[in-house]
Amino acid sequence: MTTAPLPLLVPSYVHDEWWPPSDDAELADVLDACTGEVVARTSSDGVDVAGAVDFARTVGQRELGRLTIHERALLLKQLAQYLMERKDELYAISYATGATKADSWVDIEGGIGVLFTMSSKGRRELPNSQVVLDGPTEVMSKDGSFIGTHVYTRLPGVAVQINAFNFPVWGMLEKFAPAFVAGVPTLVKPAPQTGYVAAECVRLMTESGLLPTGSIQLVSGHGHGLLDHLDYRDLVAFTGSARTANTLRQHPNVVHGGVRFASEADSLNAAILGPDAVAGTPERDAFVRSVVTEMTTKAGQKCTSIRRVLVPENQIDEVIAAIAERLESRTVVGDPRDEGVTMGALVSVEQKQAVHDAVQRLIDAGGEIVIGSAQDERSGALMDPVLLRFDDADTEAVHTVEAFGPVASILPYRDLDDAIRLAAKGLGSLVATVCTNDPEVAATLVQGIGAHHGRVLVLNRDDARTSTGHGSPMPQLIHGGPGRAGGSEELGGVRSIKHHMQRTALQGSPGMVTAVTGVWHTGAPQRLAGDPEFGGSPHELHPFRKSLAELRIGDGYASPLRMVTLGDIEAFAHETGDTFYAHMDEEAAAANPFFPGRVAHGYLLVSWAAGLFVSPDPGPVLANYGLENLRFITPVPAGDSIRVTLTAKRITPRVTDEYGEVCWDAVIHNQHGEVVATYDVLTLVDKEQSS
Amino acid sequence: MTTAPLPLLVPSYVHDEWWPPSDDAELADVLDACTGEVVARTSSDGVDVAGAVDFARTVGQRELGRLTIHERALLLKQLAQYLMERKDELYAISYATGATKADSWVDIEGGIGVLFTMSSKGRRELPNSQVVLDGPTEVMSKDGSFIGTHVYTRLPGVAVQINAFNFPVWGMLEKFAPAFVAGVPTLVKPAPQTGYVAAECVRLMTESGLLPTGSIQLVSGHGHGLLDHLDYRDLVAFTGSARTANTLRQHPNVVHGGVRFASEADSLNAAILGPDAVAGTPERDAFVRSVVTEMTTKAGQKCTSIRRVLVPENQIDEVIAAIAERLESRTVVGDPRDEGVTMGALVSVEQKQAVHDAVQRLIDAGGEIVIGSAQDERSGALMDPVLLRFDDADTEAVHTVEAFGPVASILPYRDLDDAIRLAAKGLGSLVATVCTNDPEVAATLVQGIGAHHGRVLVLNRDDARTSTGHGSPMPQLIHGGPGRAGGSEELGGVRSIKHHMQRTALQGSPGMVTAVTGVWHTGAPQRLAGDPEFGGSPHELHPFRKSLAELRIGDGYASPLRMVTLGDIEAFAHETGDTFYAHMDEEAAAANPFFPGRVAHGYLLVSWAAGLFVSPDPGPVLANYGLENLRFITPVPAGDSIRVTLTAKRITPRVTDEYGEVCWDAVIHNQHGEVVATYDVLTLVDKEQSS
Repeated sequence: MTTAPLPLLVPSYVHDEWWPPSDDAELADVLDACTGEVVARTSSDGVDVAGAVDFARTVGQRELGRLTIHERALLLKQLAQYLMERKDELYAISYATGATKADSWVDIEGGIGVLFTMSSKGRRELPNSQVVLDGPTEVMSKDGSFIGTHVYTRLPGVAVQINAFNFPVWGMLEKFAPAFVAGVPTLVKPAPQTGYVAAECVRLMTESGLLPTGSIQLVSGHGHGLLDHLDYRDLVAFTGSARTANTLRQHPNVVHGGVRFASEADSLNAAILGPDAVAGTPERDAFVRSVVTEMTTKAGQKCTSIRRVLVPENQIDEVIAAIAERLESRTVVGDPRDEGVTMGALVSVEQKQAVHDAVQRLIDAGGEIVIGSAQDERSGALMDPVLLRFDDADTEAVHTVEAFGPVASILPYRDLDDAIRLAAKGLGSLVATVCTNDPEVAATLVQGIGAHHGRVLVLNRDDARTSTGHGSPMPQLIHGGPGRAGGSEELGGVRSIKHHMQRTALQGSPGMVTAVTGVWHTGAPQRLAGDPEFGGSPHELHPFRKSLAELRIGDGYASPLRMVTLGDIEAFAHETGDTFYAHMDEEAAAANPFFPGRVAHGYLLVSWAAGLFVSPDPGPVLANYGLENLRFITPVPAGDSIRVTLTAKRITPRVTDEYGEVCWDAVIHNQHGEVVATYDVLTLVDKEQSS
Repeated sequence: MTTAPLPLLVPSYVHDEWWPPSDDAELADVLDACTGEVVARTSSDGVDVAGAVDFARTVGQRELGRLTIHERALLLKQLAQYLMERKDELYAISYATGATKADSWVDIEGGIGVLFTMSSKGRRELPNSQVVLDGPTEVMSKDGSFIGTHVYTRLPGVAVQINAFNFPVWGMLEKFAPAFVAGVPTLVKPAPQTGYVAAECVRLMTESGLLPTGSIQLVSGHGHGLLDHLDYRDLVAFTGSARTANTLRQHPNVVHGGVRFASEADSLNAAILGPDAVAGTPERDAFVRSVVTEMTTKAGQKCTSIRRVLVPENQIDEVIAAIAERLESRTVVGDPRDEGVTMGALVSVEQKQAVHDAVQRLIDAGGEIVIGSAQDERSGALMDPVLLRFDDADTEAVHTVEAFGPVASILPYRDLDDAIRLAAKGLGSLVATVCTNDPEVAATLVQGIGAHHGRVLVLNRDDARTSTGHGSPMPQLIHGGPGRAGGSEELGGVRSIKHHMQRTALQGSPGMVTAVTGVWHTGAPQRLAGDPEFGGSPHELHPFRKSLAELRIGDGYASPLRMVTLGDIEAFAHETGDTFYAHMDEEAAAANPFFPGRVAHGYLLVSWAAGLFVSPDPGPVLANYGLENLRFITPVPAGDSIRVTLTAKRITPRVTDEYGEVCWDAVIHNQHGEVVATYDVLTLVDKEQSS
């Protein structure tokens, strides 16, 4: 595919079809940020939004529902690979947005990176099914016949995303990825200023042929009335200004209709220089680097940019000088297509005007420009970085006026309490950076500002070079923040997938909870091979002889009893070297509050249990790769006997391998039927019997 | 303390003082639901709400912050015991609300039960500190020098609760308990109709002397303007009608100010009778019992009551007859103070009128009364149960009109898809009950309705007797639901405590993340005893020789290497009985995709590791009570050697015992420095050295 000739008529994609703006649509021009040339025309007039919502809820839900979580996650990886091979098409058209190549790297490859991460996390951390269990099982009756647990099931609606102009690809993909893995169809509404880049990406996504019908739809243009068709089944993830977020939050379908509304809004993020991080320390250098990076990357048009630079009052002059020096030596402002340019343009002249207005408000409030100028000295949407100094750190404007461009303010603080208080004056932020090499300073600052922030980055000499930086939300970690930052969460690995699901408490008998969740729960029916005295049947096959294709939840094995002698305990102690007194010294063991006298090693018990349940010959069970939740409950003195019951609890075929995981519930009992230990045994098992 | 003479002037409790309504306050009368006598007079005129909010944010936050999570949780248990001893004072005054003794049991002892459960869960499932870790550590750089994790810290504001009239004690305590454990001060605004019961409970709570100053404040009366003083630091937990919830949700401090607003609203909950649950089955009987219980308990004034009774169309007559028979034989409506009465009054004559109006709307929409009457045939706020029949199950009113009293509607469904569709027409509900003994029916129905509900109860013959019932939210499980039900969550064990905390992504070097969280992270500084070749120092004490008072995060032990021979593997196989071919048969083992040939048992490795790290003589370490997160990473063939490094990761002194838990990070390496296995060892350790 080649890039369409400019100006591009940006189409929408709804109901499995592309819809260019109709002939009578009122078109808005989008200009190249540097040249002023018209690069795109956009309108959502006439797009059937109601139909798109309905299509998502019906066809999209149905098609996504045919796949499991792992199958969807694998598609996401394939999509990422497909896009990666075609990334140059996105880079080529992104220059017109004012972005440098480095800016676009964050947008394009950062966005594709989210797909890779969500794919991998979805497959590693979630089950290969439609229902996700949450938290421990709660036994709600004394006899265990009534239990409770929590399940996540996907939302039955559509995930609407309303994006900001600054990251047209990343902003779309970071919201699409978790929705897709959860099985919820997406409807994208990009910002008109850069929506042509998003539309190009959607075109690649649909052309990949990888996505089930209805997985993604696109409304290009203004998208008025998008929320009019949503209800409690749907969610809206908004990124943009706090003002727009507040307007949307008052939509009747949000207030009365139960639409799940998440917002991620620009905030006045702080960077705090620790008192120990004086000139000459790596922390002070990392601090200055961060401030300059955040002022210039994407020309400061990031909701995570550092706006408030908090430094100890005696360091303020030195830090200003260092920032000025680094800006001077490193920053070349210009058309990002030109060689050597390191900082591109703002997205539009309107945006530049808004930033200049904000700078003026900061000056009027008492700010002094110490780097750059209040004058518009650059053509088009280009603008030089500006640093303002406020000697009165409590000046209200510095904590409320956001200049969404290459602008920051520097403020003095007196002590750590003062720094915490000032950081909190942002009334909720996405992120703060703390530069210190003093663990106590880090603990005090982070615990003090934590609840006001969605993310805190601590930079010191150990991570200054390897850190992913203040401004970069990572797919593994949550992105969002309280208050002004929108009061929501995105990303955070599988957390974001679960945000597209409803958590429901499930109560019932163990058998019914097992039937609903597909995970065996204690007390549910079992089909045990093994010793008839303990529930085994000679007619059942040992579960280790079954492939994933044959194994069912509840299949298991009941071992016979085996007695533990003092000789066994001593031999085990001798061989392993574990001569802890509880196993070796009757008197000392009896003085221990938990033991009746000498007892068998816990490791002896689980080792013997493996010997009791194993089926030793080659077969579908390939390996025991781990163990979880082991608890020793009743001690086993010499003369007691143990037996073990193993039950297939959770079966997870891998979508990319010829085997999968089986988690077995293991319970060791003694001869009195008391529970000695409980744990989960993790094994790898072939999908089919080898021929 | 004796009950105050009636009518009680219901006071507020703010700023650590009791404030009776002032002389010029406009008082609202509260009448006895049965006798019509004035039992209380209430007003919040003149209460300094702004001062109360400030007091909570300053004094309350400070005083609660002096305690750890476990210390607060223990106080909650002591408070529960204190209230349990004085519960009769609450029972005595509750009759006037129309509640029977059984209704008040749910309110009073149910509420105290939440305190017990949250106390126990807080201590068992959360750390004994101020910072709660969430989820796994994310290694964010190849060399491990930059990591990410998530922490919860308490919200820096006040938890405002606005409660419904039906459960004045439970409604308050179920919200207070998690806020208190989280360390967030509470401001209670009870419903005026029954606020005198809540006020009495607050009086007992403050008189206990157990609660730190500012932990709880009470605004009795209408509480107008309560939200005017809140911001993003605060949360509001509302229980009541969807209408009021929607009004509050539009408050500027919610829309613009970032107040965290949770609501739990009345919903049109369904009960679904499975097609298999025909007359004569225990499931059909359980269904009828549930419907009757939910119609009559608290005179049907529960947000969780069953309003929509969904039955297969061919069973509807039979089920109506069974409900009628059970209501007839079991229900005695009257003044709850009278002997033999099983169903009390609605809270007020106004409430009864509202219920009658709703019944009339249901009749107008096509409902036919099949049990009870549309006429007001009882005095005062007493009312007989009413069941309406709708032959057109799609009648809109039956899915939208809530009669908040002893009223339900019965509807026919055709098949499971139809039942799912009808249940979803409630547009989001708190709870649904499914009665079936067919696992496939249960799976289909629950997975179909799950995302529309906050809780689903499956009743069959196994749990019909032990179930806690459709209408009872349990403290271990979440309470709330999407859409009409309010779109929020309460309870759910420690989930509710975390709702009072901010989740923040934390990035930094392992050392700094350790400093901030108090939990050791891989890569952070260690102080190791043991073998100098592997980082140990002869000057360090073996960490098993240290009590909790002496042990520090990062203290550990580095063992020497020990070689594994084929003889060791065979001896272990012989002793344990674990003769799995990977340990015994070179050829078969080499054919396995994960093994180079015969390898040591995983259980051998962890058993030997214990022998390598143990310090055998009696000392502060009392027992190894379990093991977590064991993963075998590199196989160990004969001739390889292993060593183990043990590091104190998490230290949790118990508030009720002379010992606590220490979780040790364990890593087994081979002679090449490759990681063989990783796991956490859980031990119990004395707080002090025994003399």
